[in-house]
Amino acid sequence: MNPGRPVLLLDETRARQNLERMVQKVHAAGVCFRPHFKTHQSHEVGRWFREKQVTAITVSSVHMATYFIQDGWTDITIAFPLNIHEINLLNSIPEAISIGLLVSTPQTAQKLCETAGRPYHCWIEADTGFGRSGIEASDTHAFRQVIQILQSNSLLRVSGLLSHFGHTYQAKDIPEVSRIYNSGMEALQALRSQLLPVCPGLKISVGDTPSCSMLADFGQADELRPGNFIYYDLMQAAIGACSVGDIAIALSVPVVEVHPARRQVIVHGGSVHLSKDSMPDEQGRPVYGRVCRLEGSVWGSPLENAFVKSLSQEHGVLQFRSTIPADIEAGSLLAVLPVHSCLTADAMGACLGSGGRVISMFDKTRIY
Amino acid sequence: MNPGRPVLLLDETRARQNLERMVQKVHAAGVCFRPHFKTHQSHEVGRWFREKQVTAITVSSVHMATYFIQDGWTDITIAFPLNIHEINLLNSIPEAISIGLLVSTPQTAQKLCETAGRPYHCWIEADTGFGRSGIEASDTHAFRQVIQILQSNSLLRVSGLLSHFGHTYQAKDIPEVSRIYNSGMEALQALRSQLLPVCPGLKISVGDTPSCSMLADFGQADELRPGNFIYYDLMQAAIGACSVGDIAIALSVPVVEVHPARRQVIVHGGSVHLSKDSMPDEQGRPVYGRVCRLEGSVWGSPLENAFVKSLSQEHGVLQFRSTIPADIEAGSLLAVLPVHSCLTADAMGACLGSGGRVISMFDKTRIY
Repeated sequence: MNPGRPVLLLDETRARQNLERMVQKVHAAGVCFRPHFKTHQSHEVGRWFREKQVTAITVSSVHMATYFIQDGWTDITIAFPLNIHEINLLNSIPEAISIGLLVSTPQTAQKLCETAGRPYHCWIEADTGFGRSGIEASDTHAFRQVIQILQSNSLLRVSGLLSHFGHTYQAKDIPEVSRIYNSGMEALQALRSQLLPVCPGLKISVGDTPSCSMLADFGQADELRPGNFIYYDLMQAAIGACSVGDIAIALSVPVVEVHPARRQVIVHGGSVHLSKDSMPDEQGRPVYGRVCRLEGSVWGSPLENAFVKSLSQEHGVLQFRSTIPADIEAGSLLAVLPVHSCLTADAMGACLGSGGRVISMFDKTRIY
Repeated sequence: MNPGRPVLLLDETRARQNLERMVQKVHAAGVCFRPHFKTHQSHEVGRWFREKQVTAITVSSVHMATYFIQDGWTDITIAFPLNIHEINLLNSIPEAISIGLLVSTPQTAQKLCETAGRPYHCWIEADTGFGRSGIEASDTHAFRQVIQILQSNSLLRVSGLLSHFGHTYQAKDIPEVSRIYNSGMEALQALRSQLLPVCPGLKISVGDTPSCSMLADFGQADELRPGNFIYYDLMQAAIGACSVGDIAIALSVPVVEVHPARRQVIVHGGSVHLSKDSMPDEQGRPVYGRVCRLEGSVWGSPLENAFVKSLSQEHGVLQFRSTIPADIEAGSLLAVLPVHSCLTADAMGACLGSGGRVISMFDKTRIY
């Protein structure tokens, strides 16, 4: 069942529990659920959402949208600023599929007006402090400008304001996440109030995994778009968005060398498997994963005295803080919990579910 | 020719020049050339080596070996510590294919003796100071032990001592690289002298890209295995192993937003494209790439006043140190030079060569 080489294991029970918990919470809050599929990138895992009556999804690229359309999804927001070079691919999507786009510059809005060949739901991205993409939420004038341009083409419907409170990823507890969420929502509500006279019916779409996992009151949000929660990871556990026991994927790694003197174990599992994302330990040094015992395809709690210290392309170096257990030797199989599950899943390109069956994912080479 | 979405561009002329330069140098040194194919991972690029009479190659996994066997390669060293769980796959490789393995623990040597179903060339990995995998070069006893075990099975031939001087990646000039190379070679030669009585004919295989690019005298090396040099990258340029003008791959990224006030440009090009590897700038802050103008599929010199400041899954944030040029706007196409080309190529899974044709690569999901 475990082939003994670096493969990504998916604990379906945990993933389905993570999903069930989020579905219950979002329903209880009376908000539309539009989960982000960029973490799992998989038809099969997507179907678990469909079993829970999820019909609206979020993806991070046009090609990822086409992948999920192939599996019958018909209501998709592409939550990445529109790249006008992809307009022909977008226009080729059948009109029966509802497509949401992010438009946040007047130039892009203008080009979309000139080239749209089918209806689009347009979301204007608002930056409430994360400082990545979108128009600063205080810049009402710029929002009005984009709205005015979009309203000149009847194929384009301005659906609402969309924001990603990505700065919750730097938070460490509920009060901090709550403060970020509430201040972001206040900014969005104020903006919406100012824009409603020119654009009635504007919705608010938010929903990073820390906020959605740690809060229960989503204020005036109309729609939540968490994605990472399906698998979670060490970063989310550090924030407090999940427990380590909720993490639903782990990389199975074979031990190839044990170095007792320097208390290190070399495994086949490197940056092409886990990705090179890291998080700081107590001393601020990067950690690339945590180490668990593995029985078949079931992993235990992380070992308290071990962590992934460094990664080369194929090598992983596990550092033990005390003596390496005697039964860990060349040929042993261990599991590594990922720091950032989205990137690990993307790096591996597929995973093994229950019974060792292969769960395939979006093939990124389809962009060529 | 440039599809306007994040694609990896390969400058074939530069790659072939990098190859030609290395071939000339290795021939002049009278050393066997066994280039590492883990950087390009491509049948087509591999054929450019074959045109230069290269017949022996290095790969980083058993599955990557099977991929290159499919394209007719018949002499392959798998330069990663043997994972005994893969012995069945190894044994299934036809005997006409010469396979080299890395064996560096007595346990693995023992298991290989018990399970080898075909001939193997065995290399014992020696650690001369890099501190990752292999037996410490001073531990002659351990080498003797592994040799003795391997010699008990006539299918196993002990070919030599193999080492990766990976600490040259931390060097900054020729004297430093030279010091690391020479001290490593001294350790290997001393070790070989001690082992020759029990194992005649032992060879020495070394060859990281900095050493092979920056030195001309390879001492007692019998074989060189550089890989990264085919594309090079910003890390190699910082070491002095290449010039920035030798870098043969770049990610084409569309601009989706321009933020003049904070002097940032948002592009479609994130950690799933470039990988999350970084290098420090003068102030020690991480840099994820450098930014170039792009005309079609030809990129210019990196802009002096810009760098890739951060990466999300799909977003890249370009930071300008002075005013953003007026012609960079939503819809512009730029190129990003990778910090670490091996990981960028692996993340992209394919690239575009001359005339925009797709150059395919090893499909990593074949491990499932």
